[in-house]
Amino acid sequence: MGLDRESENRLFRKFKSGKRNLITDVEGVCVGHVTLSDGDIQTGVTAILPHPGNVFREKLFAGVSVINGFGKSVGLLQVEELGTLESPVLMTNTLSVGTALTACVRYMLDQNPEIGIDTGTVNCVITECNDGEMNDIRGLHVKEEHVRSAIEAAGPDFDEGAVGAGTGMEMMGLKGGIGSASRILELGGRAYTLGVLALTNYGTDDNLLIGGDPVGRRIRAQRTKEDQGSCIIVIATDIPLIDRQLRRVALRATHALARTGSYSGNGSGDIALAFSTANRIEHFNEEAVKDFRMLYDEELSPVFECAVEAVEEALLSSLFHAQSVRGVRGKELKSLREYL
Amino acid sequence: MGLDRESENRLFRKFKSGKRNLITDVEGVCVGHVTLSDGDIQTGVTAILPHPGNVFREKLFAGVSVINGFGKSVGLLQVEELGTLESPVLMTNTLSVGTALTACVRYMLDQNPEIGIDTGTVNCVITECNDGEMNDIRGLHVKEEHVRSAIEAAGPDFDEGAVGAGTGMEMMGLKGGIGSASRILELGGRAYTLGVLALTNYGTDDNLLIGGDPVGRRIRAQRTKEDQGSCIIVIATDIPLIDRQLRRVALRATHALARTGSYSGNGSGDIALAFSTANRIEHFNEEAVKDFRMLYDEELSPVFECAVEAVEEALLSSLFHAQSVRGVRGKELKSLREYL
Amino acid sequence: MGLDRESENRLFRKFKSGKRNLITDVEGVCVGHVTLSDGDIQTGVTAILPHPGNVFREKLFAGVSVINGFGKSVGLLQVEELGTLESPVLMTNTLSVGTALTACVRYMLDQNPEIGIDTGTVNCVITECNDGEMNDIRGLHVKEEHVRSAIEAAGPDFDEGAVGAGTGMEMMGLKGGIGSASRILELGGRAYTLGVLALTNYGTDDNLLIGGDPVGRRIRAQRTKEDQGSCIIVIATDIPLIDRQLRRVALRATHALARTGSYSGNGSGDIALAFSTANRIEHFNEEAVKDFRMLYDEELSPVFECAVEAVEEALLSSLFHAQSVRGVRGKELKSLREYL
Amino acid sequence: MGLDRESENRLFRKFKSGKRNLITDVEGVCVGHVTLSDGDIQTGVTAILPHPGNVFREKLFAGVSVINGFGKSVGLLQVEELGTLESPVLMTNTLSVGTALTACVRYMLDQNPEIGIDTGTVNCVITECNDGEMNDIRGLHVKEEHVRSAIEAAGPDFDEGAVGAGTGMEMMGLKGGIGSASRILELGGRAYTLGVLALTNYGTDDNLLIGGDPVGRRIRAQRTKEDQGSCIIVIATDIPLIDRQLRRVALRATHALARTGSYSGNGSGDIALAFSTANRIEHFNEEAVKDFRMLYDEELSPVFECAVEAVEEALLSSLFHAQSVRGVRGKELKSLREYL
Repeated sequence: MGLDRESENRLFRKFKSGKRNLITDVEGVCVGHVTLSDGDIQTGVTAILPHPGNVFREKLFAGVSVINGFGKSVGLLQVEELGTLESPVLMTNTLSVGTALTACVRYMLDQNPEIGIDTGTVNCVITECNDGEMNDIRGLHVKEEHVRSAIEAAGPDFDEGAVGAGTGMEMMGLKGGIGSASRILELGGRAYTLGVLALTNYGTDDNLLIGGDPVGRRIRAQRTKEDQGSCIIVIATDIPLIDRQLRRVALRATHALARTGSYSGNGSGDIALAFSTANRIEHFNEEAVKDFRMLYDEELSPVFECAVEAVEEALLSSLFHAQSVRGVRGKELKSLREYL
Repeated sequence: MGLDRESENRLFRKFKSGKRNLITDVEGVCVGHVTLSDGDIQTGVTAILPHPGNVFREKLFAGVSVINGFGKSVGLLQVEELGTLESPVLMTNTLSVGTALTACVRYMLDQNPEIGIDTGTVNCVITECNDGEMNDIRGLHVKEEHVRSAIEAAGPDFDEGAVGAGTGMEMMGLKGGIGSASRILELGGRAYTLGVLALTNYGTDDNLLIGGDPVGRRIRAQRTKEDQGSCIIVIATDIPLIDRQLRRVALRATHALARTGSYSGNGSGDIALAFSTANRIEHFNEEAVKDFRMLYDEELSPVFECAVEAVEEALLSSLFHAQSVRGVRGKELKSLREYL
Repeated sequence: MGLDRESENRLFRKFKSGKRNLITDVEGVCVGHVTLSDGDIQTGVTAILPHPGNVFREKLFAGVSVINGFGKSVGLLQVEELGTLESPVLMTNTLSVGTALTACVRYMLDQNPEIGIDTGTVNCVITECNDGEMNDIRGLHVKEEHVRSAIEAAGPDFDEGAVGAGTGMEMMGLKGGIGSASRILELGGRAYTLGVLALTNYGTDDNLLIGGDPVGRRIRAQRTKEDQGSCIIVIATDIPLIDRQLRRVALRATHALARTGSYSGNGSGDIALAFSTANRIEHFNEEAVKDFRMLYDEELSPVFECAVEAVEEALLSSLFHAQSVRGVRGKELKSLREYL
Repeated sequence: MGLDRESENRLFRKFKSGKRNLITDVEGVCVGHVTLSDGDIQTGVTAILPHPGNVFREKLFAGVSVINGFGKSVGLLQVEELGTLESPVLMTNTLSVGTALTACVRYMLDQNPEIGIDTGTVNCVITECNDGEMNDIRGLHVKEEHVRSAIEAAGPDFDEGAVGAGTGMEMMGLKGGIGSASRILELGGRAYTLGVLALTNYGTDDNLLIGGDPVGRRIRAQRTKEDQGSCIIVIATDIPLIDRQLRRVALRATHALARTGSYSGNGSGDIALAFSTANRIEHFNEEAVKDFRMLYDEELSPVFECAVEAVEEALLSSLFHAQSVRGVRGKELKSLREYL
């Protein structure tokens, strides 16, 4: 889990990692994958469950930062308006977003018989990157059952690298995919956890930085024309942050992307979503007004710094864990490990 | 087409209507419906084709105004980032957005064999309202072939009222649905057209205003608890406006909603999208730089006023054209005509 | 205070007014004016104090809606980022914003000796409309002492009409200025107050609507070319709303503007700011985490409707209270009363 | 001009610099300073003139990215709404923004006798950082004549370091101030210039990165508590970009900040503004519709990469040029040069 010894030497850490060094170090967060890897088909689904309960009935504060809106993610509009997350966060390839959305809707309908009858509808969050370089993306190979399986597979332990939605992704001319990391930080005398899961599909081969070291210029990976992939970054925390604050945290994913060598190219749909498990907002509220908890904004600087560190490590962790993969049209992407 | 004599007397018009008084008065814009009306199933699909060519290869400037983001529309993020529309605009019920998205993706793949191989992916715009009050929305009755048929049915003439995506919609305690209108305005000595298509599913029974007349308080339609439906408003024009200006035009849909009695209730996902057919932005550009045409912002005030007038009429036109409908759980919505 | 009998007959009210029918019905809110009315000089300053304490040390949640950003208001950026208001809200003419800002800074420095030494700086909110049609605005006649006097004059009772920042303002070809209104609404069994203060300088002579009645077309006031003034709307409430919710409330000022006949012309810098007195966010926090109270968003619809009603009345109230005024270059604006 | 030999070795450059390696390499852009450095007074003003003509009558497309809105800049609202810049861009300390605004208004009134009479008002852009650590900021020592002098001093050659608005600024525990850089890039067979001017007042002592090298951890500069300063970044270019594209370019200043070690702390008002000199938008337009030139968004990736490189160098250049300074309360900030 996390980076290996070599990268640890390169990356400076102010904050220590959580037990697993994964997003699931934030209590209650679970992740599941379905991987479709077979010749021209190199794609999949990753599901993040924000808490173990019914997230529609007990929503979480959430915030979004659209770093570069060249993307097809679904559900962010309502997160921005209402400041809450009420579904799992799904990741898949760009052209399978519709399938993932329908599957997520069915899952939510099964869990909540009142949706569409007594209580409006549900806002599902589906994120995506384009794996068309490695995957026969036009074949729409992700089916509803794959999405359901990813949700059902979710647990505290999960793989990083060329798995789930990350199966066919490319980062900096190398094999990218799923990366994760976590950090512990103390605020007001209490320890909190911040975890990250990233789907990495961005950057050009010559720009990769690891701990400031311009590795990309040396290893001369698969040549890329421009920074056109995309990157989805999900940040979970148990710090009591409200939607606006979470949007501020999500924005700092930009800093982490930059530290790995990204300039968020025109075609790179870089989007970050952050949510907090500290407050639960009931769908069926009994009182009109409720007490919530909120960190003062004056206390946010270490949270921002911690988030940058954790996101940077999660992004690089996808490279360190991904194996070399051969995909559609014979294209091969090598693992960073082959160059180290 | 448009409102009838009675409403004409109530509504003051500064601008004259186009030939059909429909969005399709903007040259090249086509609209198609598929209506599913059978007992508990009261739903459908409406498709707007922005121009007769290949809209992926020749994009149009577009702008979005999210009046109230309690909605599940898809594709707006990229419209905001790139300022362009590159697909048909689809409308359907909230839980069928995934199906409509997949169907739209397949349609675009068929038309553009390079998508997903040589040239990235495609951004499809799918909009929605919740017709769960009248429709068995949990049944997900919209299928991919319905979406395809709506696109293929698109032409310059189309019905208003309880048709297409408007089949099961409710407005102000009355039967809402699809409404449209158009206006001609002169700018710099040249006549331009601005057209509107609205999907109306908003408002409370006591708030309906027609030309300032508080009709809702008199007719006592089906009681509604709060303004929780949603409203999608699409504005097309041949005025040479760029994305930022179209966003400004789209925002004025708010004024028109207000003039019909809406206060954009918490649950009402009111969203407006505007596009201009005046400039085409090629996907496969041969030069790096191109000349475009743009109205000066100083000339925009009559465009705003004209847009407010056209949107107001389109919203009310949905009421004037909709027939009474009986739907799921025996609920009936009456036509405004029954009260006049 | 508020509208007169005639207008009461025209305007429908779902919600009852507070005691004064002024923004100061929200407990603790105070308003003060300085009026400069002498020949070519027709301008002034209006100050709103959000609560009676030190607002820098005890900030309030606040939200902004930029309806049309053709305006020069100051301080909104930080309100949007931090979600808080930490100064009085000042109103003056467009070219005197710098003077008002400096005066407000000095006032805050006097009250808070730690600013600029131990604790960063202060964010002052200055709003404006262009009174150049009636006032020798190029003369920059507002001085720092006028701003200070307006702040010091603030109390629960204040005048409406051609006073303070409203002295030289024009609305719909009539004499506009300062208008105010308030409403009481019940949420979860408790009564809350929502108050509004508007600075009205917008609209065209033919578009004025009062309770849906197209009064403007009949009275043929001073001819205007286009909707190019501006309108500033401040909403105060004791409902426990947080910044995102207050932004949603502020957006509904658009609906109220529309109901008076505005389409927010290109040059009309229409901006709304809402704040809640229910939670106080300490500048010098002792704990890292704070408890705060928040209304559920599901309860917001009546707040929105109430806000639209109160803002509409505040806008019109400026017309009902303003006297006819003669200003620079001999221009005269008549009071609406002269036409009734 | 620009960085010295040492830093050149550390920083990798894909793009070559312009002649001066300053923002003024973009033809027509001029910069002027007024420096107030005398004991407790360590502050000043910097003025950027976007082109040599009357910028009110011939506006430029411009875009803003608010990276962290904990700032008091003025005029950005209208830039966002209208997409144009119509005044010089001024920089000064936070509490002197009002004075700079009034001075800028007077300058614009002098140049444009029709403002406030025939043609509305003017939108002045004033940016700021808090130099209160080094400067007696409460004394409001910047006077209107200083602002006027900075505008009048503007030319193609100007100093970097502890000058103008940068006189009292602190970056990463070192003496910051004004930094600038430029790059040449080729698009569609033509050479274009992109230039940057930064006002640097951000970061913590341990985070400074130079070309990925964690210099800050080694040199142990003046200890800072958190990243709470602010940073203003102005990007000028002759590439034909429109407002939305310039906003996208401005956002990439975030990546450059990150590459120098910033995480945009809570109190750091990091704001970027970009403008293009390629199209001029006339205030007094004779036609309703205008032709303008625009780069295709597909060509933007090298512009983004080039902008990140130029902003990074401008930020660091402020450190390389600033001399050690002693200011208010005896505080001293050392030049980076003292550590090299």
